[in-house]
Amino acid sequence: MTPQKVVIFDTTLRDGEQVPGCKLNTAEKVSLAVQLEQLGVDVIEAGFPISSPGDFESVRQIGATIRDAIVCGLSRAVLKDIEVAAEALKGARRPRIHTGIGTSDFHIRSKFNSTREVILERVTQCVRWARNFTDDVEFYAEDAGRTDNEYLARVIEAAIRAGARTVNIPDTTGYCLPQQYGEKIAYLVNHVPNIDKAIISCHCHNDLGLATANAIAGVIAGARQIECTINGLGERAGNTSLEEVVMVLRQHRDLGLYTNVRPQELNPISRLVSETMRMPVQPNKAIVGANAFSHSSGIHQDGFLKNAQTYEIISPEEVGAEQSRIVLTARSGRSALAYRFQKLGYQYVRDDIDFLYEAFLKVADTKKEVNEEDLLQLAQSYASAQAV
Amino acid sequence: MTPQKVVIFDTTLRDGEQVPGCKLNTAEKVSLAVQLEQLGVDVIEAGFPISSPGDFESVRQIGATIRDAIVCGLSRAVLKDIEVAAEALKGARRPRIHTGIGTSDFHIRSKFNSTREVILERVTQCVRWARNFTDDVEFYAEDAGRTDNEYLARVIEAAIRAGARTVNIPDTTGYCLPQQYGEKIAYLVNHVPNIDKAIISCHCHNDLGLATANAIAGVIAGARQIECTINGLGERAGNTSLEEVVMVLRQHRDLGLYTNVRPQELNPISRLVSETMRMPVQPNKAIVGANAFSHSSGIHQDGFLKNAQTYEIISPEEVGAEQSRIVLTARSGRSALAYRFQKLGYQYVRDDIDFLYEAFLKVADTKKEVNEEDLLQLAQSYASAQAV
Repeated sequence: MTPQKVVIFDTTLRDGEQVPGCKLNTAEKVSLAVQLEQLGVDVIEAGFPISSPGDFESVRQIGATIRDAIVCGLSRAVLKDIEVAAEALKGARRPRIHTGIGTSDFHIRSKFNSTREVILERVTQCVRWARNFTDDVEFYAEDAGRTDNEYLARVIEAAIRAGARTVNIPDTTGYCLPQQYGEKIAYLVNHVPNIDKAIISCHCHNDLGLATANAIAGVIAGARQIECTINGLGERAGNTSLEEVVMVLRQHRDLGLYTNVRPQELNPISRLVSETMRMPVQPNKAIVGANAFSHSSGIHQDGFLKNAQTYEIISPEEVGAEQSRIVLTARSGRSALAYRFQKLGYQYVRDDIDFLYEAFLKVADTKKEVNEEDLLQLAQSYASAQAV
Repeated sequence: MTPQKVVIFDTTLRDGEQVPGCKLNTAEKVSLAVQLEQLGVDVIEAGFPISSPGDFESVRQIGATIRDAIVCGLSRAVLKDIEVAAEALKGARRPRIHTGIGTSDFHIRSKFNSTREVILERVTQCVRWARNFTDDVEFYAEDAGRTDNEYLARVIEAAIRAGARTVNIPDTTGYCLPQQYGEKIAYLVNHVPNIDKAIISCHCHNDLGLATANAIAGVIAGARQIECTINGLGERAGNTSLEEVVMVLRQHRDLGLYTNVRPQELNPISRLVSETMRMPVQPNKAIVGANAFSHSSGIHQDGFLKNAQTYEIISPEEVGAEQSRIVLTARSGRSALAYRFQKLGYQYVRDDIDFLYEAFLKVADTKKEVNEEDLLQLAQSYASAQAV
């Protein structure tokens, strides 16, 4: 089976940037867009042009700067929104307009005070409007996660008939289980007659911690685009983490899917986004957390030192992280201690280590982490004791 | 269908505490254990008694303090480890010994330089040893995620025959996809003849961001215990987040599964663990992140103000978080602005808001977040302009 490509649609600069505290100025947004293109993403969602003059200008400048990636602007299903998005994207070499509307009964009733049939007309209308400005139109069915599948299939069929080339199925509230989300995508694959004319896109939120699993379930079921952000930034508990979906597909090659993202860039761009957007990444974050490649328990350190693969499925070099760390704490064992002494130039034999280990534990029980200075002191005391 | 209980096995004080920088002293560990019991967890893994004298003492004191929850101590498949764990748990009202060994070929060859048959004998041996000290023995098959299912079924059968009441199937390296992990559990349910005599436990690591999804796939397939930690702390990219699995089961009641955890305590204990263990929680963390209930884009704020359920599946009160926040940024719309003005006592009509919104966007484009003081200033300028 020839591996198939999954399009990576990065929305760090739109869904990520709308997060409290993450706002960027235009120069910062343009500079991050350039780095995202370097990373190898296929589509950069640059902003929501109608939302503010500053965001309009950011989308305009990103469109004028980026050469290879598609540059995308968001809009509601409103003529004015779409016109302003088109205007902002005028200078882009490969512009995409992303437009759509809420399709769950919650959204139709509470937000629009409307009916399913009226919404269906607006779907056709907004895609047609957008097609006046560019061939590359993506349609989103907001809250698709809670939209009844039969109605959703009618919505998607209408959007494709009106000219959408990508159809986005967002789990807006982060509600779905992976199996449910996968079944929703499979339902569309099997029930939308013109589905072969469009790419299905996954846009999953992380309110229950399932965004990555849901997006993967989506591509297993036939979707071929994932919308995601660096470090999983996004509204509320965030969006699908770009670094996680990319590495899941690399680790599970038997799925027959690949992306064009350069994994070695994942850690550098994670740090850049965290610093520019002032959003910390927790140490226990997959792929890009500070501890993602740290081994601290004795059992793990011992196994890791015999063969890294015992406890590591990804090497830190593969994703541009620093080398795996062997951190000495009260949970470390003799082999980790010997390894760290060896790094400092001490070639101890088993009896030495037995003795030193007792002394080490006394220090370790009083400290969070035993550092090089502590080790040098232990070595010195040991040398003095033997000299006597 | 009567809902079935999923046992919550908290390992914040063992898998979480072995993380670099998270080490606690005995008083801190005892105090957190008391809070975990308040939260409603069924099992508290208190530590790894053989690893250091400090950890032994912590397990001993937790065992002497906790009355209702089971208190568990970890050990390798080594007589001395098990004896020391039993010694530490002597004063516990409901002691559990958690013992086991690596069962994947990686572990058998690289770590033990052994064979499948020899490992199988050690499985029986370690469980029998542990049963000398307590009836409540849990067996772990380390790296079960990468262990061949047929051999794993033989290991689990042997462990149960030797007296294990809980059998833990860890995805030690965080490698599995949810479907794979679920199939592994289903395989054991269908191929281990004495499986009805034990509870299957899920212990999933988060290296690919799939720990929560994998644990849920496990209980859907028939497991009835989840090992997890507050804030997802644990080796490398961490363990399954307790708060996430608890809320997935509450949100998806049609799964017919429940836990005894009190959801209102989730945010308070998350903050306590983060502070005591000095491990930050990123703002975009599900359930317990600072932004988990913040709405900032105009579309979301407008929908949320009409009906919270439009964008929220969990209310912040349900999980003990502060009220949902409406944060004003350049991505906010008119309805959010009107709402915040109203909170400050200004009852503006549509024309007022149209005028104020333009002025608001100018401020918002230069700031990360527009605060109350900015709003008061806007209101004042508007009043002066009208007075002229």
